[in-house]
Order: sequence, then C-alpha cells, then structure tokens
Amino acid sequence: MARRPQRSLLKAIRLVVLDVDGTLTDGRLYYGKDGEALKAFDVRDGHGLRLLSLYGNVKLAVLTGRRADLVQQRCQELSIDQVVGGSRAKGEAIEKIAADAGVPLEQVAFMGDDVNDLPALRKVAFSCAPRDAAPEVLDEVAWVSRRKAGRGAVRELCELLLAAKVGWPPPEEAPKPVPQG
Amino acid sequence: MARRPQRSLLKAIRLVVLDVDGTLTDGRLYYGKDGEALKAFDVRDGHGLRLLSLYGNVKLAVLTGRRADLVQQRCQELSIDQVVGGSRAKGEAIEKIAADAGVPLEQVAFMGDDVNDLPALRKVAFSCAPRDAAPEVLDEVAWVSRRKAGRGAVRELCELLLAAKVGWPPPEEAPKPVPQG
Amino acid sequence: MARRPQRSLLKAIRLVVLDVDGTLTDGRLYYGKDGEALKAFDVRDGHGLRLLSLYGNVKLAVLTGRRADLVQQRCQELSIDQVVGGSRAKGEAIEKIAADAGVPLEQVAFMGDDVNDLPALRKVAFSCAPRDAAPEVLDEVAWVSRRKAGRGAVRELCELLLAAKVGWPPPEEAPKPVPQG
Amino acid sequence: MARRPQRSLLKAIRLVVLDVDGTLTDGRLYYGKDGEALKAFDVRDGHGLRLLSLYGNVKLAVLTGRRADLVQQRCQELSIDQVVGGSRAKGEAIEKIAADAGVPLEQVAFMGDDVNDLPALRKVAFSCAPRDAAPEVLDEVAWVSRRKAGRGAVRELCELLLAAKVGWPPPEEAPKPVPQG
Repeated sequence: MARRPQRSLLKAIRLVVLDVDGTLTDGRLYYGKDGEALKAFDVRDGHGLRLLSLYGNVKLAVLTGRRADLVQQRCQELSIDQVVGGSRAKGEAIEKIAADAGVPLEQVAFMGDDVNDLPALRKVAFSCAPRDAAPEVLDEVAWVSRRKAGRGAVRELCELLLAAKVGWPPPEEAPKPVPQG
Repeated sequence: MARRPQRSLLKAIRLVVLDVDGTLTDGRLYYGKDGEALKAFDVRDGHGLRLLSLYGNVKLAVLTGRRADLVQQRCQELSIDQVVGGSRAKGEAIEKIAADAGVPLEQVAFMGDDVNDLPALRKVAFSCAPRDAAPEVLDEVAWVSRRKAGRGAVRELCELLLAAKVGWPPPEEAPKPVPQG
Repeated sequence: MARRPQRSLLKAIRLVVLDVDGTLTDGRLYYGKDGEALKAFDVRDGHGLRLLSLYGNVKLAVLTGRRADLVQQRCQELSIDQVVGGSRAKGEAIEKIAADAGVPLEQVAFMGDDVNDLPALRKVAFSCAPRDAAPEVLDEVAWVSRRKAGRGAVRELCELLLAAKVGWPPPEEAPKPVPQG
Repeated sequence: MARRPQRSLLKAIRLVVLDVDGTLTDGRLYYGKDGEALKAFDVRDGHGLRLLSLYGNVKLAVLTGRRADLVQQRCQELSIDQVVGGSRAKGEAIEKIAADAGVPLEQVAFMGDDVNDLPALRKVAFSCAPRDAAPEVLDEVAWVSRRKAGRGAVRELCELLLAAKVGWPPPEEAPKPVPQG
C-alpha cells in the first residue's frame, strides 16, 4: 500500500466524503438522559474543510451509520450539502452520494476508521484513515493521516488535497508579510 | 496469571457482563447543576458489542454501582437487555444476572476496573480489565486489554471472543474485495 | 522536601480538605451560554473518598475559589459535609473549616494545585498536590501524587492515608478469594 | 526567530489579545442538537489572566472568527472588556481592538494557533502561539509556549509578562512563609 499518493490522483478528487464518529470526532459519544447529547469536533478540521471547498473545487459530504442530527448544524456551518445518516450499508451509500453529486467514484475520496467503513473505502479512488483507525482499516487504505481522529486527521487530508491543487496554504489566505527594507 | 486465555474458554462464553464507569467509559463523571449529566462512551466499543451479540451467540449485560439512567439509552441501542444499577454488592449481583440470563458462571465473562469489582471478577470464568484498571484488579484478572477504558478496552474483548468463535472480523461483515484480473 | 511522609503523620490526619478545579478535576471549565455548565470528576477518586470516610475515621471538606454549585451534588454523594466556595483567601478559609470540624490544623491535610492554594497549603500538617500542579506548588508541598488531577491524584491520597490507618484496600472491602483445594 | 523575547519588549506590552478556539481552548467544539453548546477553558489560564490584569497594567481582549456567545460569560468573569466575534479578517480586527483600547500596536501581544490568525500575528509587537499551533504559525511567531492550547499556553504567557513587569508570582499573591526560628 502506497502512503504517498500521486499528485495526479489528488488533483482529480472532486468529492470528499467523511465518516463522523472516529473520523470527524475522536469517537467519544456523549450521552445524557435523553440519549446522545454532544459531539466534539475540531476547529482546525473545520477550517481546513472551509478552505478546501472554497479554493479546492471540491464538494463535501458526510456519511454516518448513526443518526445525523448532532452533525447537521456543524455541517451547515461548513457548507457540507449531503449529510447521510443511519446507513448500515456504507458501500451502497457512497455510490448514491457520488451519483447525487454527479461525481464518478474515480474522483471521490473517503475517510473512515472502522471495519464497517471498509465497503465504502474499497469503492473510492482515494481511501484514507486517521492514524488511530482500526488496524483492519489501516491495512487497506491508500493514505493514513499522521494525526488522530477529531484532532486534525481531516485537516491534514484537506491540506494534502489543497497542496496538490492550488498550494497550501491557499495563496489568497496567507498573504506574505510586507517585505522589509 | 495467564494473559493468553485458552481458546476453549473463550468459545464457551455465553454471557458478557460489563462495569460502566472506568470500563465502558474513561471514568470521567460529568456533573451539571442537577447532578450527573453526561457519560462518554466509545463508538468502536459499541460496534464491537453489536457484532458480538449478532455473530457471537453471546448475551450482554451491564452492572454498575451507580445509578443506571445515563446508561439506559446507550444499552438499548446496543441490545443490552439486563442493566443493573445501584449495586454495592457486585458479587451477588453477578450471580443474579447470570441466573436471570440462564447462563452458568462457567460461561460468564466480566470486565471491571476497581476494587469493588473484585467480588464479581472472582466469580466468573473469564475475568477481564482495561489496561488502566486499578493495580489490585490488574493483579487478579485473567486477561488485561491493551487498550484503555472507554477507548477500546471493551472492543478488544469483543474481538478476542469473536476471533475464537467465528473469526475476526466476522466473515459476514468484511467481504473481501473483488479479486482483480 | 520529603516525598515519603511519616506513618505517624498520616495516622494522625482526621480532616482532608480538597481544592476542586485542577485537583478533583483536570482543570477544564466547561462553559455553555449561561456560564459554567459541567465539571468532570473521576469515579475512582470518588470511590477512594467513600472508603476513606467509611474506614479511615476522616472528615472531608472541599474548598474552592469559584462558585460551588456544580460541586454540591457530587459532594453530597460522597458525604462531604463542608463545601466552601467563593473563597479568595484560602489561608483563612482553611482555618475556619478546621475550626468548624473541630480538628486542629496539626491533623489536617490539604491538596491544591495552584499558587492561590499556597496560603492554605502552608497552614496544614500535610500539604499535597497532584503531579501536574503548578511548579510553585510542587516546590513547596510535602507530598506529590504520581497521578494527575481529576485522574486519580485524590484517589492516591486516599490510599496513602488508608494504608497507614487500616491497610489498603480496607480489609472489609476486599475479602480474599476462597482458598483453593 | 527568537524564542527568548527581550525584557524591554515584554515590559512594554499593555494589551494582550487572545484567539479562542485552539488558544484559550484545546480546539474541541462541542455540538448539541441546537449547535455549539460548550467550550472548555482552563482554570489556570484564567487565574493567570486575572493576575495579569490585576498586577501587570495590561488590558485584555478576545478575538474569534466564530460566534462569541459561548465566550461572553467566561470573559466577564476575567474582566476581559473587548470580546470581538465573527471576524474573518483578523488583521483589520486587531487594529480596531488596539485603537479602541488606545494602545499602539507596538505595545500589543496576540496569541493564535491557525493560519487565519497570521494576518493579526504579523501586525503586533509580540506574536505568540501555543505549542500545538499549526506549523505555519509556529514558523512565524516570536514566542511559542511550552504548553498546549487550553492546557496552560495562555497561563505561561501571563507568567512571562508578569515576570518581566513585577515578578512571578506577583509579590502580593504569594506571601513568603513565616520565617522559622
């Protein structure tokens, strides 16, 4: 398994799909008396996704086996259009997401962390996982982030794609300091 | 104390009982103005339990010395039938749980982390603890997970049992990729 | 500074006073729209305190510079009678707590983590800190736990005191397994 | 880039501006069903800020690209007057904050952690970052805390400034123990 993806592959990606628990979060499920109450996202993952959709010519989607209501608000903030929840068959779900977005699977990336993500990971052109994914997932994916889930794994994927597409950080976002003297 | 349990013992297990705080969670108790408000479970522990009850021919139960209301919703999602709370005498409680499930103690596993779990750990055929359990517990149990409580210790137990019973991951859940060429 | 306290000193302790944030918790303050909303306590700290008051002939009190309302429920569960909040002058506060409990300062232990705890730490017979206390505190106290605040520092103090007083774990709580054969 | 700032620079600072997520917090965004619900601050950061405004002759302000409502209560407690939220253009925002406070940029410090903080970091006399800031930020700032965001990075900045201005800990706050004999 190659850990250094080809630049041409990265440039071709037009849809990035993300698992939620254990990918966009560190996998902790906070329960109150009425069921799940909170999810903890990472601010820098979010900033990366915003830059990716702004400068990377990439669509974003989220795919979770659990209910999606705690993800809706965050996804709205990040302009993530498709939020698919309650999906036990992720292989079929990712085909539908790609079709709805009008993007062929050859231009899709997916990041997930557990064995139930494997059917979807096997369908996409660029399969990714956070550093602390299940060993079965780490064994199969094309690329593994150096960062953990919910602590920058998604951010690193955004930077990788943007670096291949327009450079990282995007030129518009990081104006050089005024030259001295 | 043997760290590598015999395969015949693992295959015989038909009831898995779990402590909550410090076993299914990392031991943090989140309190608000009206008392305990949140518990943080691990998504991969949950997925392991779901696969164990689906493919492992194993019943699941939860046993806590504290109130059980914050656990109810999560247990319902995971098809855990027996949820026993408020129990200070865990040795007696586990005997009752096993009797109610119709499973003899020779076919019961229990995972706990603190000295008040010792009476129950001593009664079951397969006593287990997360890596970060109290030293008194680590000294006595038959098996110690390499993962911490609330961060995969229970998942590793599920994988151990499934590996002995039907293989891990369960064949139905991880279809091999379509052979190439 | 001696790290190994004398057994006679430990046996003499009859009142244990604890700081809250950074001692009974890891120092995180969870704020919602209406101000502080949650505190995260450790289940094993709590179990240690319960055993200490049950078998150690020790009174418990809590002393915080912040509002005490998020601590009340937890303290009630743990039979902690005196809960003193909003105290900026901890040196005077601990004198009052000891007087109210009818225990001379020669028989009082206090655990705290920050420079504002120093005036109280200097008054008691046995001054303690979690491993991750501020350096100014670590420099002065008589005993430093090997565990972090909110992750077992208070539990270790309970075990230290109980070991000197009645043995750890308390004999009543950890019945030996039935001898084999 | 010098990691040891000059004492004259530190003494001159009269306004300290702080980013929120990833600087005053560890970057976790806790979402409930109605959107962001919690932020986790550090008790020792807060104590440092209180001492800095009390003894350091320094004004405090907060600057975030996100909504500021979850920060308001905490800032009020810490006597932070200016709380500026929803700011995408942090370079311009910090100029306005400094002007409103009547402090020239030559006497302003700013701590931030991500690339969108760079425009503001480049404007101030003393640019700072937590240890776990984005690499692009670590490369540019004048000073990097040894502690992580939301776990003491801001506290260390407060101590650094107070040490240069009046000594750390402030003499009023840490009375020496009564000399013995």
